[in-house]
Amino acid sequence: MALIVQKFGGTSLASPEGRERVAEIVCRAKAEGHEPVVVVSAMGRYPDVYSTDGLLKLIESYARWQDSREKDLLMSCGEIISAVIVAHLLRSKGCPAVALTGGQAGIVTTRDHCDAHIVRVDTERIRRHLRRRETVVVAGFQGVTEDGEITTLGRGGSDTTAAALGCALGAERVEIYTDVNGIMTADPHLVKSASTVSCLSYREVCEMAEMGARVIHPRAVEIAMEGGLPIVIRSTFSDEEGTVIGAAPGTTGSVEIRSDKVVTGIAHIPDLAQVRVALRDDTTVSARRLFRSLADLGISVDLINLSPREASFTIKASDSEKASETLKTLGFDFVVEGGFAKVSAVGAGMRGVPGVMATIVEALTDAGIQIYQTADSHTSISCLVRMEDVKAAAVALHDRFGLSK
Amino acid sequence: MALIVQKFGGTSLASPEGRERVAEIVCRAKAEGHEPVVVVSAMGRYPDVYSTDGLLKLIESYARWQDSREKDLLMSCGEIISAVIVAHLLRSKGCPAVALTGGQAGIVTTRDHCDAHIVRVDTERIRRHLRRRETVVVAGFQGVTEDGEITTLGRGGSDTTAAALGCALGAERVEIYTDVNGIMTADPHLVKSASTVSCLSYREVCEMAEMGARVIHPRAVEIAMEGGLPIVIRSTFSDEEGTVIGAAPGTTGSVEIRSDKVVTGIAHIPDLAQVRVALRDDTTVSARRLFRSLADLGISVDLINLSPREASFTIKASDSEKASETLKTLGFDFVVEGGFAKVSAVGAGMRGVPGVMATIVEALTDAGIQIYQTADSHTSISCLVRMEDVKAAAVALHDRFGLSK
Repeated sequence: MALIVQKFGGTSLASPEGRERVAEIVCRAKAEGHEPVVVVSAMGRYPDVYSTDGLLKLIESYARWQDSREKDLLMSCGEIISAVIVAHLLRSKGCPAVALTGGQAGIVTTRDHCDAHIVRVDTERIRRHLRRRETVVVAGFQGVTEDGEITTLGRGGSDTTAAALGCALGAERVEIYTDVNGIMTADPHLVKSASTVSCLSYREVCEMAEMGARVIHPRAVEIAMEGGLPIVIRSTFSDEEGTVIGAAPGTTGSVEIRSDKVVTGIAHIPDLAQVRVALRDDTTVSARRLFRSLADLGISVDLINLSPREASFTIKASDSEKASETLKTLGFDFVVEGGFAKVSAVGAGMRGVPGVMATIVEALTDAGIQIYQTADSHTSISCLVRMEDVKAAAVALHDRFGLSK
Repeated sequence: MALIVQKFGGTSLASPEGRERVAEIVCRAKAEGHEPVVVVSAMGRYPDVYSTDGLLKLIESYARWQDSREKDLLMSCGEIISAVIVAHLLRSKGCPAVALTGGQAGIVTTRDHCDAHIVRVDTERIRRHLRRRETVVVAGFQGVTEDGEITTLGRGGSDTTAAALGCALGAERVEIYTDVNGIMTADPHLVKSASTVSCLSYREVCEMAEMGARVIHPRAVEIAMEGGLPIVIRSTFSDEEGTVIGAAPGTTGSVEIRSDKVVTGIAHIPDLAQVRVALRDDTTVSARRLFRSLADLGISVDLINLSPREASFTIKASDSEKASETLKTLGFDFVVEGGFAKVSAVGAGMRGVPGVMATIVEALTDAGIQIYQTADSHTSISCLVRMEDVKAAAVALHDRFGLSK
């Protein structure tokens, strides 16, 4: 009997139909002889049920949040409520189940409120329930510090809970249920012929996520990768097989992912601004001042090209004003220009394959698209293009690398 | 600097105006040199905010609750949310504050989920915050078992939390803020001339509550009584002084209550049914079977008159059907008649005063009201009357004992 972790997101839990499907999926796994451990997000981030957002708004009507400890106390309620409801629903279908808070499930974290990291999982209590044939439903996104303070894990938190539990329990796999069929070769809003990727390596998924694909959070993938735990991403609402994420050939992991494709997916990040700063005299000193001052403001920079005379890089368009003010104060000679997007081709298969950059440049220029900047890593190549070209660029790359159905 | 416990109910917290008043009251106590420890109920039992009732309804749409442990997990969220909001509001007004769950505040309970009793209060953490001049806001109605399970305290739970904290911390008094000005001489819906009682003994308040007055829960009063802790019941929305509850003369308690009145208040319980059961042969055996079978069904009986030939008693009208079925099954010869109410005169001063029953009978018969049954204790006399007479009966007794303004 294999232990599996099944994680359900807020979109799966927000409607009565969704909750029915969740119960069916868990009961089916049990009927097939699996031992499911369920992780749930809050239903409450979504408008039609118990709105955490509404509460936050009420609270912020008094003053901005300063106390992250208490924000966590409040936020943790959303997942607890979900866990209780799902456990109750499972019991009503004749499946013995028990709801646990993150702390009760043994998730011990650092003290970094609102962005805590899991330091260990004490699996004793979960195992006790499993021995009694009870399905455990764990409130995701939360844990408890050594001294009993409730914490939340920040972005992608419930995925992280699922991955950490899967590793600690030696699960066969972790299944992430969502409202899409898996990881797509491109955003279907941009590229109509986009399809589900059947398998991907951990590294490719992290790269896709960092390049803008809305998939699973990189932190969850890293935890699964370290434990060699395969991840399956699939839809709550269909029986499609979804995307399997596992180890690249030659690395360790219980499921090995082989791909004959150079590029496995196209990702993009919209709404960027390009910044070009003239550098004088002592380049190193002024570049250090430049990047330090932006970092101090919490502004992330990307696509950095540093030359003796100029530094160019991108920032989020929404950070343009803040960045301009600082650069002015520091006396730099600079230009900030909005309306850009970054389009990336991602694939572990491009490592060591010559001519990938050439293919990309050809595909985009054939489509009449101007490239403003490029960057590349072992598993991705990115191009900065104008916002109005992002759709055409994604389609051109998707076609050129044979990803269309 | 005196430590006081201030408890705010759901009606005080449900509206923005109410929450403003709560913050004012706490800040004022602090400005006057007190050290307030705040206990809050859920806002969520009330329709306009975050509805716990709505969630329970959602949950019961799947199946009836069976798991009281998980009901507690869910219910506890309401008070946690209140505590976080009130602490945040206090901080926004420049008053350092910290929200604690029942467990974090050191409330340790029995394992009786949904109706747990407080077994001890570990005050260390609260004292640590008080030393730092932080106002502690505790989620009422909840605690934690020795092995970390979240429990709720059942009816009147937040009052109980306040009383237990007050005793454990050696508070000067506990203030219960509500939407009325204190304990009334009678329900103002029935008796227009009803007024606030300025002081009452613990025992009188318990008697009033048990006789149907909607005041503070007897369990909270018992805890305060054992600790000799005075209770003040007053309105969040007015500056009236409210009702002080303390020790009767000759007993121990930091505040002594003296009253020159024989009767301090009139209480009533509507919607009762009278049951009359014929008893044959061996009265004791059949009476035992009778009361045991009703107890097994969870039906409370009151106003019990047992004679060799008949047992008569009252039950809640809503239990009539269940009771009838059982009595039929057991082969009893019986009558169940609805439409009754119990009206009681309560006062520690009636102890040893002759003629109180005579006065009551005179007052009711003068008003043309038929008495169906009576019962008396050291501090109360109760009469069973028809529902349509309850208002006239309450007015008659209120007038006759000089309680009208």
